[in-house]
Amino acid sequence: MPIPAPVLYPPFNIVRLSHVELVVTDLAKSRAFYVDTLGLQVTDETPDTIWLRAMEERGHHCIVLREGETAVARDLGFKVFSEEDLDKAAHFFKSRDLPVEWVERPWQSRTFRTRDPHGIPLEFYARMDRLPPIHQKYELYRGVKPLRIDHFNCFSPNVDESVAFYNEIGFRVTEYTEDEETGRLWAAWTHRKGGVHDLAFTNGRGPRLHHTAFWVPTPLNIIDLLDLMATTGWVSNIERGPGRHGISNAFFLYIRDPDNHRIEIYCSDYQTVDPDLEPIKWDLKDPQRQTLWGAPAPRSWFEEGSLFEGTDIVEPSLAAQPIVAP
Amino acid sequence: MPIPAPVLYPPFNIVRLSHVELVVTDLAKSRAFYVDTLGLQVTDETPDTIWLRAMEERGHHCIVLREGETAVARDLGFKVFSEEDLDKAAHFFKSRDLPVEWVERPWQSRTFRTRDPHGIPLEFYARMDRLPPIHQKYELYRGVKPLRIDHFNCFSPNVDESVAFYNEIGFRVTEYTEDEETGRLWAAWTHRKGGVHDLAFTNGRGPRLHHTAFWVPTPLNIIDLLDLMATTGWVSNIERGPGRHGISNAFFLYIRDPDNHRIEIYCSDYQTVDPDLEPIKWDLKDPQRQTLWGAPAPRSWFEEGSLFEGTDIVEPSLAAQPIVAP
Amino acid sequence: MPIPAPVLYPPFNIVRLSHVELVVTDLAKSRAFYVDTLGLQVTDETPDTIWLRAMEERGHHCIVLREGETAVARDLGFKVFSEEDLDKAAHFFKSRDLPVEWVERPWQSRTFRTRDPHGIPLEFYARMDRLPPIHQKYELYRGVKPLRIDHFNCFSPNVDESVAFYNEIGFRVTEYTEDEETGRLWAAWTHRKGGVHDLAFTNGRGPRLHHTAFWVPTPLNIIDLLDLMATTGWVSNIERGPGRHGISNAFFLYIRDPDNHRIEIYCSDYQTVDPDLEPIKWDLKDPQRQTLWGAPAPRSWFEEGSLFEGTDIVEPSLAAQPIVAP
Amino acid sequence: MPIPAPVLYPPFNIVRLSHVELVVTDLAKSRAFYVDTLGLQVTDETPDTIWLRAMEERGHHCIVLREGETAVARDLGFKVFSEEDLDKAAHFFKSRDLPVEWVERPWQSRTFRTRDPHGIPLEFYARMDRLPPIHQKYELYRGVKPLRIDHFNCFSPNVDESVAFYNEIGFRVTEYTEDEETGRLWAAWTHRKGGVHDLAFTNGRGPRLHHTAFWVPTPLNIIDLLDLMATTGWVSNIERGPGRHGISNAFFLYIRDPDNHRIEIYCSDYQTVDPDLEPIKWDLKDPQRQTLWGAPAPRSWFEEGSLFEGTDIVEPSLAAQPIVAP
Ligand SMILES: [Ca+2]
Ligand SMILES: [Fe+2]
Ligand SMILES: [Fe+2]
Ligand SMILES: [Fe+2]
Ligand SMILES: [Fe+2]
Repeated sequence: MPIPAPVLYPPFNIVRLSHVELVVTDLAKSRAFYVDTLGLQVTDETPDTIWLRAMEERGHHCIVLREGETAVARDLGFKVFSEEDLDKAAHFFKSRDLPVEWVERPWQSRTFRTRDPHGIPLEFYARMDRLPPIHQKYELYRGVKPLRIDHFNCFSPNVDESVAFYNEIGFRVTEYTEDEETGRLWAAWTHRKGGVHDLAFTNGRGPRLHHTAFWVPTPLNIIDLLDLMATTGWVSNIERGPGRHGISNAFFLYIRDPDNHRIEIYCSDYQTVDPDLEPIKWDLKDPQRQTLWGAPAPRSWFEEGSLFEGTDIVEPSLAAQPIVAP
Repeated sequence: MPIPAPVLYPPFNIVRLSHVELVVTDLAKSRAFYVDTLGLQVTDETPDTIWLRAMEERGHHCIVLREGETAVARDLGFKVFSEEDLDKAAHFFKSRDLPVEWVERPWQSRTFRTRDPHGIPLEFYARMDRLPPIHQKYELYRGVKPLRIDHFNCFSPNVDESVAFYNEIGFRVTEYTEDEETGRLWAAWTHRKGGVHDLAFTNGRGPRLHHTAFWVPTPLNIIDLLDLMATTGWVSNIERGPGRHGISNAFFLYIRDPDNHRIEIYCSDYQTVDPDLEPIKWDLKDPQRQTLWGAPAPRSWFEEGSLFEGTDIVEPSLAAQPIVAP
Repeated sequence: MPIPAPVLYPPFNIVRLSHVELVVTDLAKSRAFYVDTLGLQVTDETPDTIWLRAMEERGHHCIVLREGETAVARDLGFKVFSEEDLDKAAHFFKSRDLPVEWVERPWQSRTFRTRDPHGIPLEFYARMDRLPPIHQKYELYRGVKPLRIDHFNCFSPNVDESVAFYNEIGFRVTEYTEDEETGRLWAAWTHRKGGVHDLAFTNGRGPRLHHTAFWVPTPLNIIDLLDLMATTGWVSNIERGPGRHGISNAFFLYIRDPDNHRIEIYCSDYQTVDPDLEPIKWDLKDPQRQTLWGAPAPRSWFEEGSLFEGTDIVEPSLAAQPIVAP
Repeated sequence: MPIPAPVLYPPFNIVRLSHVELVVTDLAKSRAFYVDTLGLQVTDETPDTIWLRAMEERGHHCIVLREGETAVARDLGFKVFSEEDLDKAAHFFKSRDLPVEWVERPWQSRTFRTRDPHGIPLEFYARMDRLPPIHQKYELYRGVKPLRIDHFNCFSPNVDESVAFYNEIGFRVTEYTEDEETGRLWAAWTHRKGGVHDLAFTNGRGPRLHHTAFWVPTPLNIIDLLDLMATTGWVSNIERGPGRHGISNAFFLYIRDPDNHRIEIYCSDYQTVDPDLEPIKWDLKDPQRQTLWGAPAPRSWFEEGSLFEGTDIVEPSLAAQPIVAP
């Protein structure tokens, strides 16, 4: 079995995924997508940047949209438990000869940037400005009623290596897809916060950001979003779904923002806080792995993703292919 | 515009579609599909026949499954308002040189069989045995919680002719698809009972039965059915969906029974009782006509259907083609 | 049994309930309720009047709000099948010595006002201005996503008499509540359009308008409305529910507008087009009649209602009382 | 402010609430309630005991029903992170002069019983037998589709004391109700696993178990349960709801089992993993605290609860009263 034993006492305590900054080429158009269509709430706004949060979040931002020349993803942000954990984290990355750069981030306390061994840009912090709750301000709910950021999914050129690294810093694998022939990992879902994942990896040219996911209350909110997008000029931004994943059992929809950054809308995974939770293994050849109901994903879903700023990508070392829609 | 004016005072009063008999090759397997999976209720059963009703129906049957050598559809059944309407109907069909044969049908009062001009077998009756209500016996609800039979959809080799005929006997067109080049009808939805349709026609080799549809409470029941079918051996019987039709605005799922008879599960159309309701026109080239969210239907959906017993089929006179999934 | 046989060939053909004009004392406040909170669409507006339609309606109005000194209900509006039916209707009311007054109604063709034997003001017309469909303009959906007006419910001082009169003009009883001791009707639900009701009567001081009901897609829309009202200053306008009626099996919520006109939000009744549909009888003492789940209605629900303009009210002749919440 | 600062590094690590044993007087009747009506899955069964799990749980049991003379609740079970945490926990309770008794529990590894300072019986363990996943065996879903045990709620004679004690062992307060006059706590919600609560306290005669809650997918599952209970003889076991709590924002229903043990069905709380999450304060006089939509809870809900076996109860030291339904 290719899954390492979980590290139950990791070198520092990551609480959860937190936020990501996306470079977009037309801020007004991206605002129409994220605010007017998805329903995220603007917490601050300047001529070239918009900070957003979802309805149950009290931290200042989960998505930062910044206008730029080239649509790329910047750092994947993670919240650690304490300032002490932050220092331990910096120490850990330095000890692995990974770059640690302390940066200024508005609305975040001490923050450092680093990269994982494949080059994914990461940032860590312990405290972000807290905002008053709005989850019971029902007049603000719009679009898909996004409740919180749920996870990142990245293309990795070597999923075994990605899992080994993140496992070491405490991400626990909940489900994974194995290539039967080589015994290697094709994909893996790993968590910190007690759901199916904070961070997942899919075999592919990378590292690239495959998608950022938001949690919504019920499948009907996803149907509402489909109806809205289909009749307000966003129909071609619907990429895949709705459907039920075999893996994670989530009800899902994949959409693309105006720069093709991929967003997943998501509900109904399960609780994974038990330290003895057994990971669930799926065979790459099992079509219900992708979609429990049988429909294969389109080619774009397997091939396209957002580049990380300043990060070179390489072909995956594993050549195995899943079932792709014709 | 190719749609004839509605005939508001037709020669006889059809209340609604009522039932259909499907010949199936393995009654036990069909029972597993219709009863154990869809959740229809058995009202009577013999070694070779099962009568079924949906949860809010008080008539004895909406589907009759009869074991036979070859999977075909038999008569499309319609309920007329009164015995007087039944006699008027028989008179009408005779006057068109269409065959009228009075038949014995268990649990139905006087019933005659006939055919439409393309050969679709029809049967008409005024009274069927009434059963006690079960719509509040919630312990009986299973599967997709089917509430009532909703409509038939048939392949027609000439939709203009089909619409002209059924229009004359009072079916009113609610929505239709026109081929812009020829100005001919590619599909039409027609109703008697005040919803979007009792009977629809799609251009194609025919006449054949494209599908029989059931009404369910909400899209979540359709998602429940998908989850159930996907995990009880019926995953390959899921053909298309879930999705929202542009036409009719219905949330739909198409599935195939063990003999490939197609069943649609359906909710959320709209009320059409106004005699001055304007039909809605769709362009054959509009991909949102099929699926508001943009996904094209698979080839099987355009090509496959159930033969009517003893009925020859011909190629359609209109060659125009819709968008088909690759 | 106190229910008369249905009149299947009534003297004129009423298609459905259509609209009602409500006099309100503060038009801006009523707009906030009906438009901003419920989500009805404004079709026309003057300084003292607002015309509204629901999302799937193509007729110009289902609710007319008119500012006035005293909050009352005006005519209950019904659409008839044809101009000929309209003349037959006028003739019928005249033959019963009921007042027939031809009036000008904007956006309606020929319209007459009359009263039923207890004095309920009614208006009849055959054609109303038709508007383009908006049911697929999903960006317009707000609040509870009202799809269409569904029914009126009136206090009647003598439900037996009300049923006898409306039965004669073709309203068919679907369900009713009988007082076991006297054998008299305590309440009745009657329809024209093929659902559980267009018009219902409840025993009480009257005639008064008990409520006007709107149809919505699913119970979740009703929960959304509750959350919205509860957090935007309308919490005290929530009167009863949510719950499931025993009678009609509908999922319901009763709310009060700023002038205490009562609105019901409603989904999941059943189809009643069969002319041989058997009415369902309920015992006044059965608590599940009101609410299947057992909770009794509050006193206000049994006692309060809107006066009809210029209409005297009398005490009911039947003294029987249902179960009231303590 | 009466809420102590959270103890972020508690003396031992509790993962989550785990299970409770309920003594019931008629095991067959309780089986009909928990298995046939709620839809919990039997994992083992003897003549006098039934072990149950919910659909996404892999641990062997979350509810143990044991037949006995007197309906009482036994130990509230909690899972700790490791065997080492278990020993630390035992040491902690001994150091507080609380009883620690190591006991045999089938399907659990080393387990000890203890009591909190008010006498609530508790048990702690680190490992329970793990069962194969069934969350994708959709043919097994029944009733309300319970996904997992969510929390316990107890009457406490002194909520300030209860919160102080559990805060010390790492339970973090998410929301609380304060009595404005005395500045004392009337109720508090505390968590370990990252939701609104694992354990809550309500002021009252105690200690007693107020309720045990289960998490379900959507409000529609709760409506399904209401319809089922209302029509299968359980209507009088429906105590309160459905409704939305102000506190926790959960959609809820309270029902009573055949021995009056109270069960809550629950969905839609929010994620609370942030160590700097601010507790939300509610005023005891705010009626929307109980039910966002305004309806007060019935008297039974404030007064009735399950005794803990062998535990004396006392009157609460705080006399303040919430709003009770008349
Ligand atoms: Ca949910
Ligand atoms: Fe994902
Ligand atoms: Fe259809
Ligand atoms: Fe009503
Ligand atoms: Fe609770």
